[in-house]
Amino acid sequence: MTPAQQKLVDTVLERFGSKAVTTDPQEIAPWESDWRGRYHGSAPALLSPGSTAEVAEIVRLAGELGVKIVPQGGNTGMVGGATPPADGSALLLSTRRMNRIRSIDPAANLAVVEAGVILANLHEAAGEHGRRFPLTLGAKGSATIGGLVSTNAGGTQVLRFGNMRHLVAGVEVVLPDGSVHDGLSPLKKDNRGYDLTQLMIGAEGTIGIVTAATLRLYPAILERAAAWVGVANPEDALKILRMMEARTISIESFEIIPGEIVGHVVAHIPGIRAPLAGEHAWQVLIESVATEPGAEAPAALLERLLVPVFEAGLAQDAVISTSEAQVESFWKIRDSISETERALGPAMQHDISVPVDKMPRFMIEAAAAAERRFPGTTATAFGHLGDGNVHFHVRAPDGADRDSWYAGDGPEISYFVYDLVVAEGGSISAEHGIGQMKRAELERLSPPSRIAALKAIKMALDPRGILNPGKLVSLAPEADTP
Amino acid sequence: MTPAQQKLVDTVLERFGSKAVTTDPQEIAPWESDWRGRYHGSAPALLSPGSTAEVAEIVRLAGELGVKIVPQGGNTGMVGGATPPADGSALLLSTRRMNRIRSIDPAANLAVVEAGVILANLHEAAGEHGRRFPLTLGAKGSATIGGLVSTNAGGTQVLRFGNMRHLVAGVEVVLPDGSVHDGLSPLKKDNRGYDLTQLMIGAEGTIGIVTAATLRLYPAILERAAAWVGVANPEDALKILRMMEARTISIESFEIIPGEIVGHVVAHIPGIRAPLAGEHAWQVLIESVATEPGAEAPAALLERLLVPVFEAGLAQDAVISTSEAQVESFWKIRDSISETERALGPAMQHDISVPVDKMPRFMIEAAAAAERRFPGTTATAFGHLGDGNVHFHVRAPDGADRDSWYAGDGPEISYFVYDLVVAEGGSISAEHGIGQMKRAELERLSPPSRIAALKAIKMALDPRGILNPGKLVSLAPEADTP
Repeated sequence: MTPAQQKLVDTVLERFGSKAVTTDPQEIAPWESDWRGRYHGSAPALLSPGSTAEVAEIVRLAGELGVKIVPQGGNTGMVGGATPPADGSALLLSTRRMNRIRSIDPAANLAVVEAGVILANLHEAAGEHGRRFPLTLGAKGSATIGGLVSTNAGGTQVLRFGNMRHLVAGVEVVLPDGSVHDGLSPLKKDNRGYDLTQLMIGAEGTIGIVTAATLRLYPAILERAAAWVGVANPEDALKILRMMEARTISIESFEIIPGEIVGHVVAHIPGIRAPLAGEHAWQVLIESVATEPGAEAPAALLERLLVPVFEAGLAQDAVISTSEAQVESFWKIRDSISETERALGPAMQHDISVPVDKMPRFMIEAAAAAERRFPGTTATAFGHLGDGNVHFHVRAPDGADRDSWYAGDGPEISYFVYDLVVAEGGSISAEHGIGQMKRAELERLSPPSRIAALKAIKMALDPRGILNPGKLVSLAPEADTP
Repeated sequence: MTPAQQKLVDTVLERFGSKAVTTDPQEIAPWESDWRGRYHGSAPALLSPGSTAEVAEIVRLAGELGVKIVPQGGNTGMVGGATPPADGSALLLSTRRMNRIRSIDPAANLAVVEAGVILANLHEAAGEHGRRFPLTLGAKGSATIGGLVSTNAGGTQVLRFGNMRHLVAGVEVVLPDGSVHDGLSPLKKDNRGYDLTQLMIGAEGTIGIVTAATLRLYPAILERAAAWVGVANPEDALKILRMMEARTISIESFEIIPGEIVGHVVAHIPGIRAPLAGEHAWQVLIESVATEPGAEAPAALLERLLVPVFEAGLAQDAVISTSEAQVESFWKIRDSISETERALGPAMQHDISVPVDKMPRFMIEAAAAAERRFPGTTATAFGHLGDGNVHFHVRAPDGADRDSWYAGDGPEISYFVYDLVVAEGGSISAEHGIGQMKRAELERLSPPSRIAALKAIKMALDPRGILNPGKLVSLAPEADTP
């Protein structure tokens, strides 16, 4: 620990008590690596402020002392964005003690929630008021609101509700100078200059620490249903989505999975059965919900919507859920893909997006191109077709040595995939952010004007580089590489 | 004209031809004042580039030469945001020649539109594809897409569709260094750092010139209907909105007007009749539309939604439109308020917002407080109750001298109103922006941290203060007051 870090730790201990800081390596260890074990850092202390005022005072002091701070929520990120630098040059700041739901207003459909609140707890609290916070994802039992805001999280309901950006009505943020930006007031219209709330969403804690957010709620789901549809190709799947979108706004999810992957899931995961009897090259999971009393039952809606789909020859076969348990079983297949893929061998995974209309062709052509360029690999794309966002995985040839493949062909494969994405006007990070994982790729693949603008903003708001050093953009490459 | 300005003008003329520049004072004059005649500036030349590349080259040269540029669209703004400084220190740059709709994709529900396209023309073009661009406002015959993006415009359909920010899928922007940020690719998910698109929306041309935008389209309206409802107070009106929102998503507009104002409109505007027979202290205009084939007819929906409203004793009387002409006649009343108010005498007008739930009480109490504090005045609030945004007007005492009242009590009244707004966590600019009109008030009423952040962003992206000097935030007060 540097003298400056020690001074900050001592001051925090003295002013905010022993709950607010630990230097015990055993307590800190779980938070020094990301949950997938890809990134490993070192922090001489873990600060756990109990209030926005405490966060502000810590950041102010850190600025004075030149101590760097890595903010952390549930530590469920995918790009090493909350992992501290390896050299111990930064302290961790956890929001875990700031876990109050400050208010829920069911009439206004708003909740004011502190950064450390776990997503599943918000779901439950909203449900008790007959409301729903629609964003959800696999890590909901650990992911926190502050992290979800700071990474502009996505998930499975983006098709209807948008990502976190669209669900945030306001934020409270501690800025790098230790001042508090109180933007929690839920104004539907507010044109007072550059939108600081939008700027903080997805900023990965590099220009401010989100301490609370005002979030939009929606009516609770009264009933839901899902259809599992066999289709010939992604092109037809997108046509189905377009037909349905023209007839209803009640489609919440539209996920596409290659039939081969469904086969692997059924083979690997106990208790899972294939929804459809025959072989189908591509399969689609469509979810619909009813939230208004008296609305058409979701299963009936799906059945009605599928009639013209079959008439147009776009679906080969389909089954509609008859119970909530069956909906769950459909989702179990979708949610088991990652686990199944891990069992199949090492794979380079890419969270990418292209314009929705380009996605069907991209899924086919990019996969073929990757397999041609890297013989023996298997490329598959699955996921949120309706969002133009798929998980594009390239699996190592059978028998490849995991470590040498990850170190050798692995990065080359990612360069190749990202180049294809950029050529289609796409994004190398659809959901997961940049963190430390994609910083170099962002710099390589962005026009200089974009990088210059990102750096100028970082420099303007955090000129001393106090917050989350080495993530997203570098101020000076030599100074803050994690 | 300064030598530097002359050099820029000569270069533009030489490189882009005579269409791209004029120095004829008569041609320039209409663009030197805002349309309400409140702000007057002077520009020695008006540049009219024909393409994004030309804009970029002009801005690059301007930076090199130290020439300031004021971007302008339809010049329909409300806060002097497109009016040049009075001292001739800036050239005007009009987007009027960049008026191409580059593409409309009805399947993807997207349009790519240049900055100079007039809103009404986009409405028409979308309609030809069975689609609708839902943002609309009084100035639609002149307002341009670039200006609407740069001011994050609102209008009457915000309740359902949000303001411009929610309708923009991407922007193309010339940055102050003359580089082009091409963010037109309509990615539904894109987490590559600070959201430059969101940052440019509502930035009033101070950190970039929006040259094109990708905009979201919606299904065309098949049928619409409106209800005119008499209520006792704004509190009951909001309860009605909440009841309806819990049962449908098809309410597009929810406007509240004091009964007294309706009376004035009926008295002043020929051919308008009061929708309701009796006296009602407050009146509400509710619009509903059908866009899905087979959906419930909007009039039937409104009738169904009003049943529990009457049962709950929230409505005193109501009439539902039986024809499109009647819908138009209801809107005519709403749209004639400004004209009517002008006939009633001078008034200080405020475009303000507070959280929706606080608005009913604010409308009553703030009006009473203003009338107490400024005896003889009449304060009225009307407008977008569902957005938490009303137009708050304070009319001069009968017989007050226009000029001396505007110069005397006028500003005091605005300070008073804005103080009340800020006390409720509201915004002193809901729809119209800051421009030059509210810059001092923004500075007076914002926490220093907010102003510091705005200035830091401006300084980071436009360090030489080339773009739209004196608007929104000042870099150095002495240097760029218009």
